[in-house]
Amino acid sequence: MTPSDPAGERRGRKRGETTVGIIARLAGVSAPTVSKVLNGRPGVALDTRRRVEAILQEQGYRRPDAIGPAPVLEVVFHALESHLAIEIMRGVEGVARGQSLAVGFTEMRGREEPGRSWLEQVLSRRPVGVIAVYSEPAATEQARLAASSIPLVTLDPTGEPLHDVPSVGAANWSGGVAATRHLLDLGHRRIAMVGGPTGFLAARARLDGFRAAMDAAGVPVDPRLVRDGRFFFEDGLRHGRDLLALDAPPTAVFCADDLLAFGVYEAARAAGRRVPEDLSVVGFDDLEFARWSGPALTTVRQPLAEMGAAAGEMVLALAAGITPTPHRVELATTLVIRDSTARLQDRRNS
Amino acid sequence: MTPSDPAGERRGRKRGETTVGIIARLAGVSAPTVSKVLNGRPGVALDTRRRVEAILQEQGYRRPDAIGPAPVLEVVFHALESHLAIEIMRGVEGVARGQSLAVGFTEMRGREEPGRSWLEQVLSRRPVGVIAVYSEPAATEQARLAASSIPLVTLDPTGEPLHDVPSVGAANWSGGVAATRHLLDLGHRRIAMVGGPTGFLAARARLDGFRAAMDAAGVPVDPRLVRDGRFFFEDGLRHGRDLLALDAPPTAVFCADDLLAFGVYEAARAAGRRVPEDLSVVGFDDLEFARWSGPALTTVRQPLAEMGAAAGEMVLALAAGITPTPHRVELATTLVIRDSTARLQDRRNS
Repeated sequence: MTPSDPAGERRGRKRGETTVGIIARLAGVSAPTVSKVLNGRPGVALDTRRRVEAILQEQGYRRPDAIGPAPVLEVVFHALESHLAIEIMRGVEGVARGQSLAVGFTEMRGREEPGRSWLEQVLSRRPVGVIAVYSEPAATEQARLAASSIPLVTLDPTGEPLHDVPSVGAANWSGGVAATRHLLDLGHRRIAMVGGPTGFLAARARLDGFRAAMDAAGVPVDPRLVRDGRFFFEDGLRHGRDLLALDAPPTAVFCADDLLAFGVYEAARAAGRRVPEDLSVVGFDDLEFARWSGPALTTVRQPLAEMGAAAGEMVLALAAGITPTPHRVELATTLVIRDSTARLQDRRNS
Repeated sequence: MTPSDPAGERRGRKRGETTVGIIARLAGVSAPTVSKVLNGRPGVALDTRRRVEAILQEQGYRRPDAIGPAPVLEVVFHALESHLAIEIMRGVEGVARGQSLAVGFTEMRGREEPGRSWLEQVLSRRPVGVIAVYSEPAATEQARLAASSIPLVTLDPTGEPLHDVPSVGAANWSGGVAATRHLLDLGHRRIAMVGGPTGFLAARARLDGFRAAMDAAGVPVDPRLVRDGRFFFEDGLRHGRDLLALDAPPTAVFCADDLLAFGVYEAARAAGRRVPEDLSVVGFDDLEFARWSGPALTTVRQPLAEMGAAAGEMVLALAAGITPTPHRVELATTLVIRDSTARLQDRRNS
């Protein structure tokens, strides 16, 4: 330990010189070098740093708990939802900067990583809090975060909306109603729904909203017009092709996700059908790209930045020892009408 | 100070009890509470935390330098480039996770913030390093980072490619050549260029690549077909409309940015011209959306994730006291041929 590294010295000593000494010997470096690596300080060559890190991992070395949390709110995404990430990050950042906290971006690529899992990494950094986006950590993971006093909030989790972890969602059902009512108001009756994964409650809520609006208008739902897929462009393209090839194709499609809507656009383009003249399309999310698609997409806006901000406020409250009330927040969705929906045309004129 | 808060105690004492005492008195709280706020520790109500933070700011309180850096690499974006952010963040994260560092996301909205500037925030957190994307911090900002031993790398800065800060860019000129040669190979001669901001060297390099390919093929550049704009959808739309309204419109357009290309798509759609049958379009960047646009966009791919990784490696090397060699890295761009470009048709057949 060098006298100029009092924090490192204290941390090293807390764990006992022996452990750091063993690591140093295994890595063939000095104890101060191990200390620098442990504390993320400069002055260690990249190769050396990596060798020491690898040995620390092998030996299962843990930093003493007395070290304070890093000034970071960590946001953890699944790979698939990353096209929603920037807006969410912006929202969290707006809250975090008020407390001079950095916002950390982590993308989970499968539950476990080669080497350390995302959870091991988070525990080693000890952020002020964690926001899990579209991914509810497993109960064992939640317990480990709780044991380290790292609060957790989930943003629109795929699981049950009522659970132990505080969470932020959007009014998915209401959004489904608004989208469908808009198409009904334009005179459409043969309305298709390209939904999301059936196991995903947010997708189920959008579908239920669609059915509710159709029922309220007294319009029967043709089961051939109701499809489900993953939230992928390719699934929108496939269902769009199928739907347009039907003897009685739909005149309008409500998609549970903007990427599905862009897939339907491409199916229409390939089939020589015009949007909105021949086919009205409504999406869900309002991705940044929705207004740049041709034509600009009518869609149900999820307030992603506001949802990120709400999750940020919740996790900071938890970090301050306050239990957020309410435990679950659902923010309103709004229908954004652009150029992809039009009044049903008399087919003979089109 | 509580006995369970040795780090806070040490930090507080370093600065002198008086200062923390004054802050505590002004905020109407105890000194341990101020210490908790300073060290980002839980157990302080949100309102109290904010009041203390505000007074710390007013009083210009600075944390002592002896505190080690936070385990974070911070990536700073301008608001305008955020559609490129996720890929860059992924690349940086791939490098950072090898060292168990979080990747921080900061979006600069103008140079100065109400309250603390981005720089003040970064200095208060003391990250392991900073990557500035498309934004070269001012000399005074660079000096303050250097004074705090926080290394800085810029990713494709708008300024001179050769400067003091190590930097990562893409082969913009070569990308311009490849895009233009592809259109020439398809038989196009009336090729328009919708370029980026003239003061932006990356945009200038793409334009120069266009001119070089045209010259090499012995095809004169019609000055009416060369436009410049900001990297906005709206500028692509405007120039696209103008170009298509010419007596002799171009048969192909090379856009210096994918957003410009999407604007040209919309101009073509509105004018009843088909892409690629009536107009071939090439973009630059290869945004995630490029493959979902209708038709899928032929574009010059900037390897954003690889650029992020290279910037991450550079800044970690600097943090370890190693001067990166070379000082400037330009990664290769590649032409991705999709469905928006086609062989020049005999106009009488189209």
